Amino acid sequence: MDLIQSQTDFNENKKDPIQSVGQISHLALDIGGSLIKVVYLSRSSGNSADHEEETPDSSNGTLGVPNCDGKHPIFEGKIHFAKFETSNINDCLDFINSKKLHLGGFQHHDDLIKEKNFIKATGGGAYKFTDLFKEKLGISLDKEDEMDCLVTGANFLLKAFDREAYTYINSEKEFVQIDHNDLYPYLLVNIGSGVSMIKVDGDGKFERVSGTNVGGGTFWGLGRLLTKCKSFDELLELSHKGNNRVIDMLVGDIYGGTDYLKIGLTSTAIASSFGKAISDNKELEDYNPEDIARSLLRMISNNIGQISYLNALRFGLKRIFFGGFFIRGHAYTMDTISVAVNFWSKGEAKAMFLNHEGFLGALGAFVSYTKHNLDTT
Amino acid sequence: MDLIQSQTDFNENKKDPIQSVGQISHLALDIGGSLIKVVYLSRSSGNSADHEEETPDSSNGTLGVPNCDGKHPIFEGKIHFAKFETSNINDCLDFINSKKLHLGGFQHHDDLIKEKNFIKATGGGAYKFTDLFKEKLGISLDKEDEMDCLVTGANFLLKAFDREAYTYINSEKEFVQIDHNDLYPYLLVNIGSGVSMIKVDGDGKFERVSGTNVGGGTFWGLGRLLTKCKSFDELLELSHKGNNRVIDMLVGDIYGGTDYLKIGLTSTAIASSFGKAISDNKELEDYNPEDIARSLLRMISNNIGQISYLNALRFGLKRIFFGGFFIRGHAYTMDTISVAVNFWSKGEAKAMFLNHEGFLGALGAFVSYTKHNLDTT
Repeated sequence: MDLIQSQTDFNENKKDPIQSVGQISHLALDIGGSLIKVVYLSRSSGNSADHEEETPDSSNGTLGVPNCDGKHPIFEGKIHFAKFETSNINDCLDFINSKKLHLGGFQHHDDLIKEKNFIKATGGGAYKFTDLFKEKLGISLDKEDEMDCLVTGANFLLKAFDREAYTYINSEKEFVQIDHNDLYPYLLVNIGSGVSMIKVDGDGKFERVSGTNVGGGTFWGLGRLLTKCKSFDELLELSHKGNNRVIDMLVGDIYGGTDYLKIGLTSTAIASSFGKAISDNKELEDYNPEDIARSLLRMISNNIGQISYLNALRFGLKRIFFGGFFIRGHAYTMDTISVAVNFWSKGEAKAMFLNHEGFLGALGAFVSYTKHNLDTT
Repeated sequence: MDLIQSQTDFNENKKDPIQSVGQISHLALDIGGSLIKVVYLSRSSGNSADHEEETPDSSNGTLGVPNCDGKHPIFEGKIHFAKFETSNINDCLDFINSKKLHLGGFQHHDDLIKEKNFIKATGGGAYKFTDLFKEKLGISLDKEDEMDCLVTGANFLLKAFDREAYTYINSEKEFVQIDHNDLYPYLLVNIGSGVSMIKVDGDGKFERVSGTNVGGGTFWGLGRLLTKCKSFDELLELSHKGNNRVIDMLVGDIYGGTDYLKIGLTSTAIASSFGKAISDNKELEDYNPEDIARSLLRMISNNIGQISYLNALRFGLKRIFFGGFFIRGHAYTMDTISVAVNFWSKGEAKAMFLNHEGFLGALGAFVSYTKHNLDTT
């Protein structure tokens, strides 16, 4: 698997050498409640030229595509990744326009369809912003189902790349070799603003079995109100330095320092997230934002881990892949999710993470170009 | 079933006519992370004298005890209920002392035990405050297991009283007749500061199968920080007037007003609790405390309902009884939990509530007096 670091956000993207229009194709978008994820292909350089082992922030950058068993010859080249905040959608439109990415989409040969220029898009924003894309860029959004794209994107990554899925236990990242003949079934948990849980049985064979509205949007929304942080990454960074025991009510706080081992709870287990705020006689500003961010991250990660496990259990699934932009390769998030899955399943189920976690939907929309009879030049 | 309104908190309790020591017995305590629940028996008046159909706040008051199929003759009289905040434990000690409740406990006949005066107590505080009770009141706490007490209390209520369990659907309270021969198995969900989920198979036959640290302490702790409310009840009252759509990100907010019916989500379903705070460019003080309280209550109630359902499903349990002081007979809380259980189970499982929801543990400790060879005078 080949990963090459390049652009991370719009400003950095500007530094990236402009590709000529003919070299860029297959622009695909996943427009979520918080973030727009952008994926496109460039053919400007060969695959083998600038390989690197891994990027420090693999949520952005480029990905050299192997030939995928010859199935996807149109994907020869490099896949580029970028993201924007949905609330700053104009930055995304400017980015696409400045790089002429929208001209590398595809044209329908179907005469029944009047509009000629389409790009693949998924997520709720593909519906919400249809008119805006038409007006600003003169393109139509060819909508792909969100769950379909998440599954297609995850299957694509898991099959095409060796070093994509990994476990994260005790701060140790370990890549997992996926046997392509033994990939299904698995539970896919995509943590965006909200959380979707999808039982995947094969290519295009899946069911959204559950979800929770306590997701990345809750972490960032509540975190913003509680800490006055300016960005999601700043909130994650804060949580890194915090101590959840300051504000969480632990079993030991209730039991006077002792465990409640009869039901498997040690004195340091959290009995009630934010429960110490009940009796502390402190105001919000008396707490360190770091400690609040930590408690919040732990509460939400643990909750997602628990609900995921309970759904995996329903269907006898041993492997849970976590994706979505909430994770961002953040150590404490992954540790908490891994511990939750391990704790509740008594070691039976395993949490795994994906290097390109945030781009499942966008990659699914990208791959969906191959479903059509396309002009790929 | 006979319910008689009397004391609600310490100040009101003072107005209650003092019972003479000999008429009071079986003081039992459940000392949790947030609240101390107090139960005791008085024999000062007969059962039939002052019956009322129902109290507006059934979480406090007294309960006339029927003869329970002759099994518990020592419980003839009225059971009194009171509660105190654990952080104000001295109020509770003063209350017990002023009414001499601790002298109506029991004395062990076992010569091996040196200390003569015991009262039954459960919850973590029974461990944490052992020394305080000894020092201030000269009594020892005879500790009963917390889960054991919750189950014993629930079984006692469900068997002894006809109008105890009810469903709450579309704001309609409907009492459920429990067939004593068809009570088990059921899932007991006790929502205190944290949440315990217990599979109950019979008297003393149970297993704590799950729980969550997102409970009443989280609602009250986070709510206090976000709204500056002074009490749990004030926060509940606020939530009554709020609108969660102001701050929650709905499916329609992402999809431009349309549903995502393919996966069963209408445009008004919550995609991400507190998700609108991401992009609103508002500070905490720009939101109405009412709306924040509403979103928080809905997030936590829905989450508890979902995890409860998933655990009921694991074990094929159709009935879920919700107890604990979080609920307080609050309409929106019960509506949200009922809707969550109904939504996730597709109507298969049923949420039920208990009139004396907050006192399960204390009642269990109370009933545990009958396990011993007691001097009940």
